[in-house]
Amino acid sequence: MLNPADDAFAQALSAVLPEGTVTRAPDHYLEEPRRKAATPAALLARPRSIDEVARIVRTCTEARVGIVPWGGGTGLVQGQVKPEGPAPLILSLERMARVRALHAEENVIVVEAGATLAEVRTAAEAAGRLFPLSLASEGTARIGGNLSTNAGGVNVLRYGNARDLCLGLEAVLPDGSVLNGLTRLRKDNTGYALKDLLIGAEGTLGIITAAALKLFPRPAGVGTAFFTVTGPGAALALLARAQALTFGGVTSFELIHRQGLLFLDECLPDLRQPFADRPEWSVLAEIGLPEGPAPEDILATLFEASLSDGLVTDGVIAASLTQRQAFWTLRESLPEANRRIGAVSSHDISLPLSEIEGFVAEAPARIAAIADLRINCFGHLGDGNLHYNVFPPKGGEARAFRHLAPAVMDCVHAMVAARGGSISAEHGIGRLKVADLERYGDPTKLAAMRAIKAALDPLGIMNPGAVLRQAD
Amino acid sequence: MLNPADDAFAQALSAVLPEGTVTRAPDHYLEEPRRKAATPAALLARPRSIDEVARIVRTCTEARVGIVPWGGGTGLVQGQVKPEGPAPLILSLERMARVRALHAEENVIVVEAGATLAEVRTAAEAAGRLFPLSLASEGTARIGGNLSTNAGGVNVLRYGNARDLCLGLEAVLPDGSVLNGLTRLRKDNTGYALKDLLIGAEGTLGIITAAALKLFPRPAGVGTAFFTVTGPGAALALLARAQALTFGGVTSFELIHRQGLLFLDECLPDLRQPFADRPEWSVLAEIGLPEGPAPEDILATLFEASLSDGLVTDGVIAASLTQRQAFWTLRESLPEANRRIGAVSSHDISLPLSEIEGFVAEAPARIAAIADLRINCFGHLGDGNLHYNVFPPKGGEARAFRHLAPAVMDCVHAMVAARGGSISAEHGIGRLKVADLERYGDPTKLAAMRAIKAALDPLGIMNPGAVLRQAD
Repeated sequence: MLNPADDAFAQALSAVLPEGTVTRAPDHYLEEPRRKAATPAALLARPRSIDEVARIVRTCTEARVGIVPWGGGTGLVQGQVKPEGPAPLILSLERMARVRALHAEENVIVVEAGATLAEVRTAAEAAGRLFPLSLASEGTARIGGNLSTNAGGVNVLRYGNARDLCLGLEAVLPDGSVLNGLTRLRKDNTGYALKDLLIGAEGTLGIITAAALKLFPRPAGVGTAFFTVTGPGAALALLARAQALTFGGVTSFELIHRQGLLFLDECLPDLRQPFADRPEWSVLAEIGLPEGPAPEDILATLFEASLSDGLVTDGVIAASLTQRQAFWTLRESLPEANRRIGAVSSHDISLPLSEIEGFVAEAPARIAAIADLRINCFGHLGDGNLHYNVFPPKGGEARAFRHLAPAVMDCVHAMVAARGGSISAEHGIGRLKVADLERYGDPTKLAAMRAIKAALDPLGIMNPGAVLRQAD
Repeated sequence: MLNPADDAFAQALSAVLPEGTVTRAPDHYLEEPRRKAATPAALLARPRSIDEVARIVRTCTEARVGIVPWGGGTGLVQGQVKPEGPAPLILSLERMARVRALHAEENVIVVEAGATLAEVRTAAEAAGRLFPLSLASEGTARIGGNLSTNAGGVNVLRYGNARDLCLGLEAVLPDGSVLNGLTRLRKDNTGYALKDLLIGAEGTLGIITAAALKLFPRPAGVGTAFFTVTGPGAALALLARAQALTFGGVTSFELIHRQGLLFLDECLPDLRQPFADRPEWSVLAEIGLPEGPAPEDILATLFEASLSDGLVTDGVIAASLTQRQAFWTLRESLPEANRRIGAVSSHDISLPLSEIEGFVAEAPARIAAIADLRINCFGHLGDGNLHYNVFPPKGGEARAFRHLAPAVMDCVHAMVAARGGSISAEHGIGRLKVADLERYGDPTKLAAMRAIKAALDPLGIMNPGAVLRQAD
């Protein structure tokens, strides 16, 4: 059983930290982007050093007060809010945001957890390098949160998820001990993969305070194109051809359904769209290549071969940086349009690649059996990761349909599970999907997770109730 | 405290398994390649199904008998032998060696743990795909062992270690429960990274029985070259240039010191060497490229640019498949020559890339202060991974110098630790490096590892004494 972060605790905590470190948490820290859940009230700590983080964790351990770690607050599964139980301490790393080191010659950057993803990308770029993790919220999301949730995004196809991009971690474990693991090594087989365990644990096993991250050389040439295709199956065949042509040089391969383009027409009509007739299915593809043939030429080769055998039906290859950026603005505006329309239920699913076509064919009728709803299916096709979001019929208000959310989510997740897919491809479990993890997760895996949680955090103070259910 | 796998236990175990599954362990299963340690006696179980594996583990749990998992027996850190304590059960997966599925269109293969690495590579090749894990012992090493030790090898630079190549695992945990985790998903954020934890745990947390592994498209063109360089620093600059020229297309970048070439002259004089005067430092580089310019042309460009500014001093670009294979035979024969010469102490270290030059400059004098010894430094330079092996002076017998081994290892490992390196880059801890892990490992990491081990294997039956010290 945990205790609330009450006034007495606030005093005790303030006593071991510099003035101004502990305050009441402003509303901003109590909310999440979709406004479906909130922390009623909380204390906020914003430490400036790992020593201060360790003191905070030790104080929480002594007082049995729960900690909710706070990155940029952009998470979509309610991992950053605690609607129920004793008021927690919110621990924000925003004041630990330094680039500690950049080893360009090693392709390594060492950053503190509070740096935004955009800051990390910019620092890499200034050194002529690429930090490839890229997602719509990168200006706000912080790297500690990206790592804690094993963030994905649009470049996973080529560069992997956040876990794949991390060489080493500094963290504070639930007993307040400091893990000094900021190795810059590409190979290190000295014991269990504690780093990989902390990454994706969503703050339930410790607080990531800094990370050594992989950088990459920048491609000599980048090419971007929109292709229209007859469906996800054709899109996957196109991807395979593009990969063969570029030896794995496809960095992004984003599937977009007509519904998303129509939402853009509705909400963001000033955005220029590449096709006058909104195509039922299109893909935004980007390739990165070494010195050699111009990427536009490779994309043209891909287009011509694929047009002639019917894999693609139309296409536009970006001819300038401005056009590339316009293509991406379109893609990155899809979530904003979704927000404005207002979803009944959103799903972040992944499927084995060969199951995608069957799923996309099956799902609409299953959802139509619940109600007349609109489906916006888009996402990172190359990773098998679809954002399969369900909306009210045209003119309908999300609020009026929200009672259908559980049925819609059950319907989608059951189809996904039956096809060997995942109910959380890149967003994590947070508090939103705890019950679904219990339902669809492997029982042996869940038992092992509970054993690990109990071993590392016996009091259950670290992000209580996220990922694993917890009485508190 | 564990019990020995005695006759009574053999009978109990045989009773729950098909005839012929349990036997006395032949000598082959009691030895390790360097013959520095052996299991005095053991029982051997060779199950044919995961159900049989689970029955074996449950029976061991009930009887408190230790299990030593056995892959191909090629490990170099004594993880597969248990010289002390009660006689264990050796559990070999050799009869579970099927390719369960190959999804070429998904770039996924699902194989049982007992398949040799060569079999997995061959199966991928037959489907027009590449399984990139590659190491000298691939004809004998089994994929379950490769995963349990997070094997490295010559293609890590581009494709990662074994952990990076695995999408999902089937395993039996220490309580006999079965982890059904053979997902083929590229993105799956449903809970802790149990897969990554089992990989590299060297059989101390469970038995891997099958894995879903990533495949890759085969490069359209492959180019291979030997370059002579003035030292490791120049080699790293050459690597950076090669990576920029190929946008990360360098698949292997192997550093070789003259001593290794002289060992080849001594032990394998029939091998053709590329340079008449054995160069002090050379690198074997391989690049894989998409359709486009011929790899030989790219290597020629690299060579000319690097010759003109002094990064390389000489070079040979393979002009045929035969020549490529001859280059690799040379590289892969280095360990065999080392075995024949007989090392005083071998080290599998990694360093931050920018520390390599300093280490290579510093180490010989430090070792010379111990005795007049020969050093063969070679390895996967692009990963910062050196096999820094120390030998008797010419004409000396390893046996006569073996008393120096602890001093030599201490000397090397202390230098490595001081430079932020790892005392085990790719071989693991096994039983050979338990004390060094205790000495150089982060105390917080070690405490967390012990807590995880106790939580998942409270009786300590899984590969007892490997990785973590254990009273038994």
